[in-house]
Amino acid sequence: MASDRTDPPPRARQMYELMRELYPICRSITGNGARETLSIIGRHLPPELPLRVTEVASGTEVLDWTVPKEWNIRGGYIETLSGQRVVDFANHNLHVLNYSAPVDRRISREELDTHLYSLPDHPDWIPYRTSYYAERWGFCLSQRQRDTLTDPEYVVRIDSTLEPGHLTYAECSVPGQSEDEILLTTHICHPSLCNDNLSGIAVATHLLRELAAQPKPRYSLRVLFIPGTIGSICWLASNRERVQHIKHGMSLVCLGDDNPFTYKRSLAGGREVDRVMARAIGELGSPHQVIDYFPYGYDERQFNSPGFAVPFGSLMRGQHGQFPEYHTSADNLSFVTEQNLEASLGLVQNAVGMLNANRTFRNLRPYGEPQLGKRGVYRALGGTDIADTQLAIFWVLAMSDGKHDLLDVSERSGLPFALIRDAAAILEQTELLAAQTA
Amino acid sequence: MASDRTDPPPRARQMYELMRELYPICRSITGNGARETLSIIGRHLPPELPLRVTEVASGTEVLDWTVPKEWNIRGGYIETLSGQRVVDFANHNLHVLNYSAPVDRRISREELDTHLYSLPDHPDWIPYRTSYYAERWGFCLSQRQRDTLTDPEYVVRIDSTLEPGHLTYAECSVPGQSEDEILLTTHICHPSLCNDNLSGIAVATHLLRELAAQPKPRYSLRVLFIPGTIGSICWLASNRERVQHIKHGMSLVCLGDDNPFTYKRSLAGGREVDRVMARAIGELGSPHQVIDYFPYGYDERQFNSPGFAVPFGSLMRGQHGQFPEYHTSADNLSFVTEQNLEASLGLVQNAVGMLNANRTFRNLRPYGEPQLGKRGVYRALGGTDIADTQLAIFWVLAMSDGKHDLLDVSERSGLPFALIRDAAAILEQTELLAAQTA
Amino acid sequence: MASDRTDPPPRARQMYELMRELYPICRSITGNGARETLSIIGRHLPPELPLRVTEVASGTEVLDWTVPKEWNIRGGYIETLSGQRVVDFANHNLHVLNYSAPVDRRISREELDTHLYSLPDHPDWIPYRTSYYAERWGFCLSQRQRDTLTDPEYVVRIDSTLEPGHLTYAECSVPGQSEDEILLTTHICHPSLCNDNLSGIAVATHLLRELAAQPKPRYSLRVLFIPGTIGSICWLASNRERVQHIKHGMSLVCLGDDNPFTYKRSLAGGREVDRVMARAIGELGSPHQVIDYFPYGYDERQFNSPGFAVPFGSLMRGQHGQFPEYHTSADNLSFVTEQNLEASLGLVQNAVGMLNANRTFRNLRPYGEPQLGKRGVYRALGGTDIADTQLAIFWVLAMSDGKHDLLDVSERSGLPFALIRDAAAILEQTELLAAQTA
Repeated sequence: MASDRTDPPPRARQMYELMRELYPICRSITGNGARETLSIIGRHLPPELPLRVTEVASGTEVLDWTVPKEWNIRGGYIETLSGQRVVDFANHNLHVLNYSAPVDRRISREELDTHLYSLPDHPDWIPYRTSYYAERWGFCLSQRQRDTLTDPEYVVRIDSTLEPGHLTYAECSVPGQSEDEILLTTHICHPSLCNDNLSGIAVATHLLRELAAQPKPRYSLRVLFIPGTIGSICWLASNRERVQHIKHGMSLVCLGDDNPFTYKRSLAGGREVDRVMARAIGELGSPHQVIDYFPYGYDERQFNSPGFAVPFGSLMRGQHGQFPEYHTSADNLSFVTEQNLEASLGLVQNAVGMLNANRTFRNLRPYGEPQLGKRGVYRALGGTDIADTQLAIFWVLAMSDGKHDLLDVSERSGLPFALIRDAAAILEQTELLAAQTA
Repeated sequence: MASDRTDPPPRARQMYELMRELYPICRSITGNGARETLSIIGRHLPPELPLRVTEVASGTEVLDWTVPKEWNIRGGYIETLSGQRVVDFANHNLHVLNYSAPVDRRISREELDTHLYSLPDHPDWIPYRTSYYAERWGFCLSQRQRDTLTDPEYVVRIDSTLEPGHLTYAECSVPGQSEDEILLTTHICHPSLCNDNLSGIAVATHLLRELAAQPKPRYSLRVLFIPGTIGSICWLASNRERVQHIKHGMSLVCLGDDNPFTYKRSLAGGREVDRVMARAIGELGSPHQVIDYFPYGYDERQFNSPGFAVPFGSLMRGQHGQFPEYHTSADNLSFVTEQNLEASLGLVQNAVGMLNANRTFRNLRPYGEPQLGKRGVYRALGGTDIADTQLAIFWVLAMSDGKHDLLDVSERSGLPFALIRDAAAILEQTELLAAQTA
Repeated sequence: MASDRTDPPPRARQMYELMRELYPICRSITGNGARETLSIIGRHLPPELPLRVTEVASGTEVLDWTVPKEWNIRGGYIETLSGQRVVDFANHNLHVLNYSAPVDRRISREELDTHLYSLPDHPDWIPYRTSYYAERWGFCLSQRQRDTLTDPEYVVRIDSTLEPGHLTYAECSVPGQSEDEILLTTHICHPSLCNDNLSGIAVATHLLRELAAQPKPRYSLRVLFIPGTIGSICWLASNRERVQHIKHGMSLVCLGDDNPFTYKRSLAGGREVDRVMARAIGELGSPHQVIDYFPYGYDERQFNSPGFAVPFGSLMRGQHGQFPEYHTSADNLSFVTEQNLEASLGLVQNAVGMLNANRTFRNLRPYGEPQLGKRGVYRALGGTDIADTQLAIFWVLAMSDGKHDLLDVSERSGLPFALIRDAAAILEQTELLAAQTA
C-alpha cells in the first residue's frame, strides 16, 4: 500500500533503538548508571571516534563547586506491615527520589507523607525529583498509588549508597582543519526519561556517526556527554585553556517530542551560532521560535557565564518545564518518535554545515561586475535553480567586501544559505572570490 | 463608613496646603511675588536643608541674555467714567498682563480693545498673558466681562513699576556621597496657576523633605526654584563649572492634574535618566507616555542646549499647551488633587532611588555559576517572591560583566528594578558581586 | 473653459518632444544610433554645458570586460518566397534582434521558428531582445504576425554589420564650488522604447538645462549618457581617479509612466543619497516606495561594486521587469506623459537641491538658548509659516552640535527639509550658526 509519508531513514530507527536500550537504566549525576550509559553510547560510535571517559573524584574542587559523593542504588520500596510492596523501584526507577539517602525503618503514614512526591493533576504519572546537594530520602509515585496508602504504618527501605567515588562524563571529538571548535553538550544524568534527554543523546551520537563519514570539516567538533550543570563545571574546570577555541556552542535537549523547534539564543545574542540557528530553523519553513536567553535551563548557563562568555545556545523541541510530561514518567518511549529525532538530527547537521561553510570572502574583481560569461561561470551552473544561482552569484559578488559573511548575504538577499554557499564555491573555483583570512 | 480608596498620606495634604498658601500671590520672573514665594517654600523645608536665595541685578549679562528690569505691581483696573471698576487686579491677579507697564489714562473703547485678552471659546476663564521683553500694558479678562464693555470710553490704571532691581531664584541641595548630582528644576514665575506650576513646587519641596530624613544617597541632589528660561540661564551663567557634575536632570511641571504621566526624554535620548524614567513610569502599570524631546517647553531647553548637553528630561501630567485649562484661571485649586500630587511625588522619589541604585557590577565568580547554596544566598531570600528573587539573582550574575547596569538587567529580564536591586544587594553581601568603579 | 488640473510647464512639453525626436532611432550599445542620439541630446543642452562625447575602440580592455565590435544595421526582413515582406525592420526597429548578425538565406519555417521571439500573452506587442555577447541572428514580432507564418519556407535578410569600431558615450558636467560631485547616469542603448529609457534621457537633459540657469551649486554634477553596463564600465575604466570625488550617485530610469515613484537604495544603504531620496520622495505625500538594493537593474550595479563602493541609488517609476510593457513595443509614446516627466524632474531637482543644502552646522551660541529677539531673527521670518519656521529654528539650534546634519533635524522634527534649510539660513545670517568644515 502506498504512503504519502516518507519513511524515516535507517538512522532514525537506530536513534530510537539507542533510546530504547538506554531507557531502563537508572542514571544520576554520578554512579554506575552513568557509566553504563556512556559504555553503550561508546559502542554506538564508530571506531575512529572513540569516546573518552573521565572520572572526577568526589571532593574535587571544580570552579566554585565540589564534586559530590557518588550515588548508587540497588533497590527501594514502601511495604505494608504485612509485607506487600506498594511502591517499588524495581517497577520504575523514578520511584525513588534521585540521590536519595538510604533508609530502612518503620514509619507512620503521617511522617511518610513528608517524603512522598506525586502529581495530583496527572494522577497516573510518577514525577521525577532529585536532591543532589541536600541529603534526603523520598519516594515518587502516582497520585493514585498515594491515595491507596491508608495504613497507619509502613516499612520504607532504600538500598542506596552515597560514598566517596567519582563523577563520570565523556567526550568525543571530530578533528577539523582547525583547533577552533564547535562544542555540543547533551546531559546524561536523567533516569528513565526519553525526551529529556535520551533524545539529545541519540541525536548527538548519530551526528558523530555522520561526521565520521565525511571529509575533515573546517571546525573541530566536540560533544560532551555529561551530567547537567556539575558535568559542564567539571569539564570547564579542567579545560580552561580550551575554552578560547570554542567558537560556537549549543546544548541539545528534548529533541524527540512533537513540539516545534525552539532555539534559545546565547546570552550575548546575535553571535554567529545565533544567526546560523535562526537561519537554519527559518529555512525549514515550519513553525518554530527563536527566543531570548534566560539564565536557567541546561548547560548553556555554564558556558555563557561572564568569565567564559562562550556564545552558547540551546536547541530543543519541548521547552524546559513547558510541556506537561516534563520530568514525569509520561516522558517515555511513546512520547518521542523516529520522525522527530530524524528532523532534529537533520537540523543540527545543517547548522553544523552552515557554521563550517560560513566564511567572509573578498571579491577579487571588485571594480565593476566581472564578466561571468568569459570565465565559464554560467557553464558551471546546473540543476533547476539556474536563475536563482545566478542571482546568488551577483549577491555574493556585490557583498564580498571582506566585511560580510555568507550568512549576511543569505539574510539580505533572502536566498537559501545553500544557494549562496554554492554560488560562492563556483566563484572561488573561477578565482573571482577568495576567503578572507582572519 | 468604609472606603475602598486609600486615604492619601499626610504629606499629600501638606503639598496641597502649600499650594493653597502660594496660590494668591502674584508672581512673575522678577519681583516681590517671587521673593515671597521662595520665603514660604523655605519655611516648608527642614532646617538642615536651607534654601539658598540668589538675587541677580537687572542688566547683568547672563549667557546670551540680559537680566530685565524688576517688575512689581500694586493694583490695576478698568473703570467706567462713572467710577465703577469693571475689571480689577484686586479680584484676580491674572487680570493685568504680566510685566505690564504702568498706565493711567482715559481711553476709547476701540483703543482699549487692542489691550484686552480673552478666550471666546471659554467665556468664563481669564487667560494668562505675559510681555517680558516688549514693554506693553494690557488686561486679561473673561469673554463675558469683555462683552459688557460697551461704553464709549473708560479709565485704565495700572499701578506697576518696571525698574532696575533684581531677579530672584533659589536652590536647595541634599549632599550625597559624591559631588555628582541629580538636578531638578521647577519654575516659580507663574502667578495664580496651580498645576502650572505650584504643583511642581509642592512636589519638589516635599521630595526634599523626604530626602532629608534618609541616609546620605549616592548622588547629591539639587532643586532649582527658578523663574522659567531666564532663571535657568542665570543659574547656568554663574555655575558653569558645576554643569559637569550634573549627571541626570529633569524639570518637574504640571504634576497635580488628572492626566496620565508623560515623560519627555532628553535631547540626546537613551541616556540613563531617560531609561530610568521609562522604567519607573512603566512599572506603575497605569497609562502613560514617554515622548521624544522637542525644543520648546520648560527649563530642559537650557540644560540640553548643545554647549551644556546635560541629559535633562521633563516629567509632567498635563502637557504644555495641551490641556484646555493651561494658562487660564481654570488652572486653579480645584484642577489639582492631593492624590495626583502624591502619585507624582512617589514617582519622582522612585526615579531618584533608581538613579542612586543603578550601578554596574562585576560578577566576582564569573567562571560558571557560583554555588549559591553553600554561600547562604538562599537563606538570605525572604518575602513572598523567593522564586522571582532567585531568578533575579541568576540574571544579575549572568549579566554582571562590567558592561551592563542593573537597569539593563531589569529591562532584559522583565523583572522589576527593585527585585534586581535587591538581588544585587544579596550578592554583594555574599561577596559574589562588586560595583564597578568608573 | 476652466480646468482643475494645472497645465504642465513648457519644460514638460519640451521633455516630451525630445522623446518624440529620439523615439524612431534604432539604438544599441554601440553604433550610429547612439551617436545620433547623443548629437540630438547635445543640441538640447545650453551652450555653456557642452556634451563631451567619448569613443572607445572595439577590443579595448575595460575593467574585466572588452569593448565589443560595433553594430550597425540598415534593414532586415522576413519575406515570403513570392517576395512579400511579412516582418520588416523598416516598420519597427524592434523587429530585428538587437546586435543581430547579418543573414541572407532561404530557410524552412521550422528552422526560422528557432530565430523568432514573440509574446503569446500580449499577441499585439513586439518584444525587445538582444544578444550582445553571443553572435546570433533573429527577429522579434507580434504573436499575431508569427501565427500568419504558415509557408513551408521563407527568405530572411538582415543587413547589419558587426565590425571593429567604437563604443560611444557622452557626459555633461555642471561645475560646482567643489570637485566633489553628484553623478547621475541614464542609459541610451535602448531602441524605440520610451519609458526605458528616453524618459530618463529627457529628465537628465532638462535637469542640466535647469542647473545651467542657477548659481554655482556646492557640488559639481555630472550626467553620464551611456549604454547600460558596458558604458559605465568604460567610463569607470578611464575615470578611476574621479570615483573618489563621487559623493552621491543615482541612475535615472523609467521616469515617464504612471507608476508611483520607487527609489532603490544603494548597496551600503543608509548613505546620504538614500536618506535624501527617502525624504524627498516622502515629502511628496503621494504613494511611493523605497526598496532595498538588489544586484540587478541598471548602472548602479557597477558603481556599487565593492571596489568602487560609490553610494549609488536608482530612481524609477515602473520597475525593471515589473510592468507588462517593459521591453516591448507597448513602451511607446502613449505610455509616458508630460505630467509624469515633469513630476520626475521636479523630484530629481529637489533631491539635488537637498544634497547641496544638507550640511552639518555648529551652534555658535551653544550655551543655553540664544536670545533670538535681540538678534533680529524674528524680523527675518516671513511668509505664512512663522510658527513652523520658529520651531525649525529651535530644532536647528538644539541639534547643531557638529554631529547632526540638516536632514537629521528634518527627520527628527518631522518638519519639511526646506523649512529646516531656511531656518539654518536665517541663523547663519545672524551668526548663530556656522557650517562644519570637514
